[in-house]
Amino acid sequence: MKPHIYFNSNIDSPDEWKAALSQHFPDMKYSVGEVCEDPESVDVALVWKLPNRGLSDFKNLKAVLSLGAGINQLDPEKLPRNVPLARLVDDSLTQTMIEYAKAATFRYHRKFHLFERQSREAQWTFLPATLARDTVVGVLGLGELGGAIAKSLAEEGFDVAGWSRTPKHVDAIATYSGKDGLSDMLACTDIVINVLPLTDDTRSILNLEFFVQCKRGACIINMGRGHHLVDADLLAAIDAGQIQAATLDVATVEPLPPAHPFWGHPAILVTPHVAGISTPETAAITVAQNIRRALNGEELAQQVDISRGY
Amino acid sequence: MKPHIYFNSNIDSPDEWKAALSQHFPDMKYSVGEVCEDPESVDVALVWKLPNRGLSDFKNLKAVLSLGAGINQLDPEKLPRNVPLARLVDDSLTQTMIEYAKAATFRYHRKFHLFERQSREAQWTFLPATLARDTVVGVLGLGELGGAIAKSLAEEGFDVAGWSRTPKHVDAIATYSGKDGLSDMLACTDIVINVLPLTDDTRSILNLEFFVQCKRGACIINMGRGHHLVDADLLAAIDAGQIQAATLDVATVEPLPPAHPFWGHPAILVTPHVAGISTPETAAITVAQNIRRALNGEELAQQVDISRGY
Ligand SMILES: NC(=O)c1ccc[n+]([C@@H]2O[C@H](COP(=O)([O-])OP(=O)(O)OC[C@H]3O[C@@H](n4cnc5c(N)ncnc54)[C@H](OP(=O)(O)O)[C@@H]3O)[C@@H](O)[C@H]2O)c1
Ligand SMILES: NC(=O)c1ccc[n+]([C@@H]2O[C@H](COP(=O)([O-])OP(=O)(O)OC[C@H]3O[C@@H](n4cnc5c(N)ncnc54)[C@H](OP(=O)(O)O)[C@@H]3O)[C@@H](O)[C@H]2O)c1
Repeated sequence: MKPHIYFNSNIDSPDEWKAALSQHFPDMKYSVGEVCEDPESVDVALVWKLPNRGLSDFKNLKAVLSLGAGINQLDPEKLPRNVPLARLVDDSLTQTMIEYAKAATFRYHRKFHLFERQSREAQWTFLPATLARDTVVGVLGLGELGGAIAKSLAEEGFDVAGWSRTPKHVDAIATYSGKDGLSDMLACTDIVINVLPLTDDTRSILNLEFFVQCKRGACIINMGRGHHLVDADLLAAIDAGQIQAATLDVATVEPLPPAHPFWGHPAILVTPHVAGISTPETAAITVAQNIRRALNGEELAQQVDISRGY
Repeated sequence: MKPHIYFNSNIDSPDEWKAALSQHFPDMKYSVGEVCEDPESVDVALVWKLPNRGLSDFKNLKAVLSLGAGINQLDPEKLPRNVPLARLVDDSLTQTMIEYAKAATFRYHRKFHLFERQSREAQWTFLPATLARDTVVGVLGLGELGGAIAKSLAEEGFDVAGWSRTPKHVDAIATYSGKDGLSDMLACTDIVINVLPLTDDTRSILNLEFFVQCKRGACIINMGRGHHLVDADLLAAIDAGQIQAATLDVATVEPLPPAHPFWGHPAILVTPHVAGISTPETAAITVAQNIRRALNGEELAQQVDISRGY
């Protein structure tokens, strides 16, 4: 196969991706950047952002492949209607997301966030340990990433619940769906992990109404998108003692601006969008499979329902 | 069985232990405190500390059972020579030690100790994630606790090595023993976890000579005893950049005195001896088994070799 691949991203390295993809397609043609010389011969667009003028010149395009696990960074207006769109699934991404979730969850479970403060304040106050089975972790989103995170936290012994749009059965996990399902789950959850995709339905979901439904003193871990969270509502819920602490890997504006009140907040840990990392080397494996499917006229794996938004 | 149990501790609750033990021996006799009324009828001494005048009046003693996983708190001069001594092994203790080790290890692995600082200093600097398989964790001590910790960190995907006095084979773990073995292991270890017992051989083992053998930038987690560590040597090794950070659950003097330089040190997290917790309810199960063995004249489980010191 000699696909013509068009690559566009302001955050991924075109050279690393070229090297990784040429392992799979030694004779590929590879075009990079805003302006593509020969758009009509392009088979597949591999993009983080769409080019400003869209893809209407790409008359023979067989697939758009997102370089992100989400697709919310792609302007739906510019997406060609009749070309299938897939998002990125990558073992390294899933694995790093799982390990981040474990790091953040064990930190709250074993009260390291409180010991960090005690340690700075020269305070030796014994706070008893509890076992993982006594800590309830609620995962918002049970897809590729949320499902894997929920499963591996259950394997750690945590008491895990999960929430999705449609009802689901997952071994060893208490599952919930819909609005009522959410408030039932939140009422008994100690640590909430958000791994929802950003859609019209999930934007600003972590708001005051949400926090009020949480168990008093719950901790929040946001691994989804910054726009899931209403920043001022989190601050108010922490001030009120309703939410105890939060770990935020994503922000509405990234980098988080220097004057933002999250910085230096004693109850908030900001991490600079590091939870999930996909390496071109491993991600190219699933991307190459989708390129083959596209060229063979087969259905894509991880295809996105654009109307659903994820 | 109607054992007469003598209990002495300044850190464990005699009432909780009484309740837990009476589940196993409803007709037991239970004596508490420094002075025992009827020492000659005592079958078993269950103690954190020995009474000041020793146990020489306990003429029919069949076993001394430590309320600690270690026995270094017991004065060897006061231990009766001809009575077997056992230490405490308890599922809850092992499980809480494992979970503490995971919390502390994932924190360094996912650089949360650096993000905590960045978060306080309003600094959004991306530091890439690595996978657990690329982090080498070296565990000092492969006994009841160290062995369980090493095994469960290997199950997490970490690259685990372990060190013991006598050579050992443990599945999925690179094992080392002896002085040469230690320096071989330290040379390639990113995170060192100490769970050795405190003996004449292991006292002050975490000293400058040890730190110099570590991989540059290694992190230290001390879950053993405070006297394993030479405090000033750790501070010097951190100053020199040889050791990156340390998590210390134990201290030479507990509570750690307010003026101690570990408090507020940016590279050191102090936790107030919380790693392992044994609850009378679960611990009484193994203690009751040992009481039965003692009364039946059988060998104790978890018997300690007093001359070896653990
Ligand atoms: N922080 C980071 O470094 C990082 C890295 C990668 C990805 N992410 C984020 O993680 C997100 C999730 O990725 P994924 O691969 O797991 O997505 P996915 O496989 O599409 O799964 C999405 C899950 O969310 C559920 N969901 C969607 N809309 C919902 C709604 N309105 N109410 C309740 N549940 C809803 C879905 O429910 P159904 O199962 O019923 O469809 C599904 O379980 C991405 O979109 C991205 O934003 C973050
Ligand atoms: N922080 C806390 O909350 C907490 C709680 C409980 C216990 N602890 C500490 O954890 C310690 C370990 O408990 P454990 O139940 O695992 O003890 P254990 O079963 O007796 O195991 C001790 C391990 O250390 C090794 N060892 C002893 N001396 C050594 C030496 N000189 N050089 C190299 N290795 C040596 C032994 O080697 P061999 O296998 O060759 O004999 C064995 O693998 C306790 O003594 C206590 O100090 C701390």
